[in-house]
Amino acid sequence: MVQKITPRSVDDSAWYTDVVQAAELADYSPVRGCMVIRPYGYAIWENMQQYLDQRFKATRHQPAYFPVFIPQSFIQKEAEHIEGFAPQLAVVTHGGGEKLEEPLIVRPTSETIINAMYAKWIRSYRDLPVLYYQWCNVVRWEMRTRLFLRTMEFLWHEGHTAHATADEAMKEVMLILEIYRKLTEEEMAMPVIPGRKSESEKFAGADATWTIEAMMGNKWALQAGTSHFLGQHFAKVFNIQFLDETNQLQMVWQTSWAVTTRLIGALVMVHGDDQGLRLPPRLAPIQVVVVPIWKSDEERGQVMPVVERITGELGKHVRLHVDDRADLSPGFKFNDWELRGVPLRLELGPKDVQKGQAVLARRDLPAKQNKSTVMLDALVPEVQRLLADIQSNLFNQALRFREENTFYPATYDELGKAVAKGFAVAYWCGSAECEKKMIEETKATIRCIPMQQDGKAGHCIVCGGEAKEKAVFARSF
Amino acid sequence: MVQKITPRSVDDSAWYTDVVQAAELADYSPVRGCMVIRPYGYAIWENMQQYLDQRFKATRHQPAYFPVFIPQSFIQKEAEHIEGFAPQLAVVTHGGGEKLEEPLIVRPTSETIINAMYAKWIRSYRDLPVLYYQWCNVVRWEMRTRLFLRTMEFLWHEGHTAHATADEAMKEVMLILEIYRKLTEEEMAMPVIPGRKSESEKFAGADATWTIEAMMGNKWALQAGTSHFLGQHFAKVFNIQFLDETNQLQMVWQTSWAVTTRLIGALVMVHGDDQGLRLPPRLAPIQVVVVPIWKSDEERGQVMPVVERITGELGKHVRLHVDDRADLSPGFKFNDWELRGVPLRLELGPKDVQKGQAVLARRDLPAKQNKSTVMLDALVPEVQRLLADIQSNLFNQALRFREENTFYPATYDELGKAVAKGFAVAYWCGSAECEKKMIEETKATIRCIPMQQDGKAGHCIVCGGEAKEKAVFARSF
Repeated sequence: MVQKITPRSVDDSAWYTDVVQAAELADYSPVRGCMVIRPYGYAIWENMQQYLDQRFKATRHQPAYFPVFIPQSFIQKEAEHIEGFAPQLAVVTHGGGEKLEEPLIVRPTSETIINAMYAKWIRSYRDLPVLYYQWCNVVRWEMRTRLFLRTMEFLWHEGHTAHATADEAMKEVMLILEIYRKLTEEEMAMPVIPGRKSESEKFAGADATWTIEAMMGNKWALQAGTSHFLGQHFAKVFNIQFLDETNQLQMVWQTSWAVTTRLIGALVMVHGDDQGLRLPPRLAPIQVVVVPIWKSDEERGQVMPVVERITGELGKHVRLHVDDRADLSPGFKFNDWELRGVPLRLELGPKDVQKGQAVLARRDLPAKQNKSTVMLDALVPEVQRLLADIQSNLFNQALRFREENTFYPATYDELGKAVAKGFAVAYWCGSAECEKKMIEETKATIRCIPMQQDGKAGHCIVCGGEAKEKAVFARSF
Repeated sequence: MVQKITPRSVDDSAWYTDVVQAAELADYSPVRGCMVIRPYGYAIWENMQQYLDQRFKATRHQPAYFPVFIPQSFIQKEAEHIEGFAPQLAVVTHGGGEKLEEPLIVRPTSETIINAMYAKWIRSYRDLPVLYYQWCNVVRWEMRTRLFLRTMEFLWHEGHTAHATADEAMKEVMLILEIYRKLTEEEMAMPVIPGRKSESEKFAGADATWTIEAMMGNKWALQAGTSHFLGQHFAKVFNIQFLDETNQLQMVWQTSWAVTTRLIGALVMVHGDDQGLRLPPRLAPIQVVVVPIWKSDEERGQVMPVVERITGELGKHVRLHVDDRADLSPGFKFNDWELRGVPLRLELGPKDVQKGQAVLARRDLPAKQNKSTVMLDALVPEVQRLLADIQSNLFNQALRFREENTFYPATYDELGKAVAKGFAVAYWCGSAECEKKMIEETKATIRCIPMQQDGKAGHCIVCGGEAKEKAVFARSF
């Protein structure tokens, strides 16, 4: 049933929660901090999974599964790692009715348990590279829940790889970052900025973290995926060594990487409007919804056989759904599927049948600009053309929005004003002091140092000192 | 690398563990009770998942995701349920550095958390049936680990459905049981006996449990899948009500059902031999392994182009792998892939190339009976024919094995002897007393009351009283 949705202009946060619940993507659970992903939301996740899984396998990665529990002592082995994760841990202290000798941690991420196994399995250069990943749930203690964006439990994949050289590991980091960029830009129609994290923002236990950062509808940034160069931090702690081709004992070089169900939240925030979701066709569980229109049994008898005929053919090419609910008006159905973000609606009434045509309504354009008529014998190619156009139009809308809300401040004062209304791009000298000062004074953070730089040097926006690279500054989720 | 495997005849249990580890299906983890599923084992699980997922969706079921944590009070709501699961719970008492007000249980099964949500979502007969399932991990405290068969954490799907009538719910129970039967018999090539569990063996909180029971290589039974008719137990506890078509408030009728990663263990135990795994082609990650044979660079130059040509074509039809490792002998490779249970091996040497042929070796037949020669231009259909034949031969071997080890005792004394060496089929009056006496005296349990009965009455094998149905008695995992 269609619910009232708070307008985005009134309260972006309330709008978000209303849309996620009304479109039945997710719901709050009785466990504080944990959400339920409902079938419509899970179907989007499955489409993302399928896309990524194919690409991981095509690049020789293999899925596996490691335990949900990690001995407390393992988490504590890597100093930065435990410092970063300590406040977020869920701890099992009792099992089978007894108090445990050593508490178990519900995995917040699996570097420690996986690398303990790698130490056992890896012996020789012949065993490398090890390119494993797993699809699973992870838990990071969190009480300020926002459906998808911030939950105690979330779903993700996590990749963990081991290589013979630092160079190979860095290539892996970049290979994965590019898969993530394609997922977000080409499938989600969400433009991202690939770049490196600052020292303070990198993964706890990594040498360096690469990220893709996207602008949400409220002009804040969202970290959409990360690919970490772990160096030899975990290899040293877990003693993951191999004999190289010259029979020398070496430490492996490692990476880890992940994207999570938070991407579903990003999809809502980037494309949604006051009517609800707008889903990019490539990830939409339903790409075309067919709404037959009739006012009498006679009209029904004219319309439904044509609906069956065209959907039989169209259904081979696109994911479609026929909404033949008898007790609901076409207008109600239109609203209902707009809320759910179905990219294309096909309307077919008795007059359309007579003329051998149908009406197509796009979700990505405003009312009155969004309808067209198509002859039924040209339906399949026209639907495919429109879906491709909707996909690229959503991307272009989001890109234009980001560009309109990205600023290039020349002074520190301007930076403060810029991050209050969008992204700011400016030189940064790289010092932690400048970063800290900026965070405290503006509420923004350094989202990344973009990979794409113009190669020119400049002056740090904070201290005025020499700076080689520009950074993206923004408030973030 | 090929490891020494304990012969099955010497120690079935050691044989099992050796094969699972040597074939790299799974390994022990540093967390007592938890295993690691390695890529080769996970690939089998993915094939099972894909099969089931397609069938669930084709029968209008929808995947969703519910929290891993369940409030302790929820688990305790259904009296039988908590009694059954209490000894197996893992308890989170601390989160985010603080002691929790109410401990959280790591889900051992999700009836309670899911039905709490159903109570919120279900309002009207229009909302029914609700046919949801999830793929996830569950935890049941367990220290006597056997890889796949008995682990603290395992992977499964769990289906949870709600219906307007008892009749509809029962149809659902049977629909799922039939999907499970097809998975095990047609994909795993493992014959099963579908039947009803006794009261003492049913799921904690169910009205009745249906099961499929298979005979393992050691002649014990393994419960391979269960489908529960929950009646209104959980509906009453969680107050899941709906308005029916006459506007009357009704309780829903429910089912739940699952199969787990233990099926991978069953696959090993049913088909494996002293050389290692024997995988049924329909689930094998690699259906055909190609081993090129050469002794010189010249021979290599003759063989490899042909290998590339035939595998290009064959690879469109079957899952294949070319073992072109340069530093290993053909004999080593043969053993290696036999250990891993690849159904069909294709050998191609310089003489074969000259004759335009290849040698095919089946994994399901004994050495000396397992090889044939095929002309390369007939390769694709011949490989497909052989794979189909291997699939049905493995099933027939397992069925014959079960039949040879199933006994029909006429007296209670004979029953005791029968269950020591296989399955026993005999009349049972249905009383808990007879069941208990038999369990205590024979170490066997009642595996199920088979759905297929001959309709004749008889005398209980334990007490001699009137009995309407026969039951299957066996020792079990």
